[in-house]
Amino acid sequence: MTTFSNTRTVRIEWGDCDPAGIIYYPRYFEIFDASTALLFERALGMTKFKMLNELEFSGFPLVRTRARFLRPTRFGDDVAVKSTITFGRSSFDVEHQLSLNGEPCVECSEKRVWVIRDASGRLKSHPVPPEVLSKFR
Amino acid sequence: MTTFSNTRTVRIEWGDCDPAGIIYYPRYFEIFDASTALLFERALGMTKFKMLNELEFSGFPLVRTRARFLRPTRFGDDVAVKSTITFGRSSFDVEHQLSLNGEPCVECSEKRVWVIRDASGRLKSHPVPPEVLSKFR
Amino acid sequence: MTTFSNTRTVRIEWGDCDPAGIIYYPRYFEIFDASTALLFERALGMTKFKMLNELEFSGFPLVRTRARFLRPTRFGDDVAVKSTITFGRSSFDVEHQLSLNGEPCVECSEKRVWVIRDASGRLKSHPVPPEVLSKFR
Amino acid sequence: MTTFSNTRTVRIEWGDCDPAGIIYYPRYFEIFDASTALLFERALGMTKFKMLNELEFSGFPLVRTRARFLRPTRFGDDVAVKSTITFGRSSFDVEHQLSLNGEPCVECSEKRVWVIRDASGRLKSHPVPPEVLSKFR
Repeated sequence: MTTFSNTRTVRIEWGDCDPAGIIYYPRYFEIFDASTALLFERALGMTKFKMLNELEFSGFPLVRTRARFLRPTRFGDDVAVKSTITFGRSSFDVEHQLSLNGEPCVECSEKRVWVIRDASGRLKSHPVPPEVLSKFR
Repeated sequence: MTTFSNTRTVRIEWGDCDPAGIIYYPRYFEIFDASTALLFERALGMTKFKMLNELEFSGFPLVRTRARFLRPTRFGDDVAVKSTITFGRSSFDVEHQLSLNGEPCVECSEKRVWVIRDASGRLKSHPVPPEVLSKFR
Repeated sequence: MTTFSNTRTVRIEWGDCDPAGIIYYPRYFEIFDASTALLFERALGMTKFKMLNELEFSGFPLVRTRARFLRPTRFGDDVAVKSTITFGRSSFDVEHQLSLNGEPCVECSEKRVWVIRDASGRLKSHPVPPEVLSKFR
Repeated sequence: MTTFSNTRTVRIEWGDCDPAGIIYYPRYFEIFDASTALLFERALGMTKFKMLNELEFSGFPLVRTRARFLRPTRFGDDVAVKSTITFGRSSFDVEHQLSLNGEPCVECSEKRVWVIRDASGRLKSHPVPPEVLSKFR
């Protein structure tokens, strides 16, 4: 089973926060989506833009996501996001752990599917190409 | 057990969509957050702004959320969002069903907690006030 | 000179607001972008999605925008947005006036260009098609 | 006249882009708002969160903004944002120049006002405190 991890730091901004002074939770999913893209960039050495142009690949839409919110974060916080990917055949799971000063704040797990466009332009699932998988080992 | 439902229509906008031409999924959580606020507005006859000023209430932060994405939506789509709330003591659950032309697109379930500010200004959970609960019956 | 106006009502949401309790100003530009798209939908009787499929049209990117912020708005406010379009040859100007209870809150003027994709897929400006202009008269 | 500059790099994300594959322009204003906050953080050595707690300060809302869009940017681009602040008495101007590989993409100028809360909790303009100004010299 192929797994791979990456950790990055994200600044929570004023504009990410709501009138309670804490992060507005949909912003976490923006952070996690970019964290998943970054896993591929780190493993493959190319951005998602390049992936779309150079690989048999039209995206990795979400099938499901689950998140637990343990502690709020606020503007000015520099949070750590550790993301771990595990591959299936034409899908993959990512676990995101977002923490502040070592304290867990959000845990999220998501399942995504690797898609390509068929002849009619419609998105359909497709096995993750072996040359992609090999870069995650 | 107190349950209450509301359905509203939401236009998916160009700016909600990503380069794949479909909605960028964090936007769904913005839609669901506003749908939850609207449940209270419909039942209580006051906006969240007024709730904060007139009730023992400082917000209903999320404890957890789960979503399944069944079909994509895109800009120009007018989707229906049916939201159903079920109350616990100091928390509540909301189920959101988002559909397009009767076809289910997203199912989301969230748990939130009713909070007030204590003397030090910190948010802490608190039983949902009886005068709020009575309006949902 | 062809001009055309439309007014719509927009609810300012909790998630549109920042820790000062007022709208986070980039959200105004999301509102204005959707208001411009709606002008075309009202005049042409088709969504932007349909425009992209049925017209010689690949978008109307912004060339410049200017906004003055006169009064803040906050969550729960239902604001009126009056948008007025004036056409040039391959560009157009839109004036947006956002008000609350008749009091002006934001004034914005934007210039956009009508674009199509050339043979290489690049966006380039193009005269607004006469069948589009005629619908605004 | 007190002026001060800062340059930072920002990654344009997939979720910042629209179905045309280029950045959705309201995202630029999110970038500029954070860039303005960062100017203060660099000069004062404290985040906006700390500024709100430690200074005579309740925010710096926008009075007006103007932007020209010269070249589009897209996901995967790492853009440079150079921000230059010039102080008036109770207001200040910021010029943002966003470029990609040395080519200018967006030019934005904004005017903001330094505000505090009066006894009734309302925001009102106030001279920028001398201890703030002195840090920008």
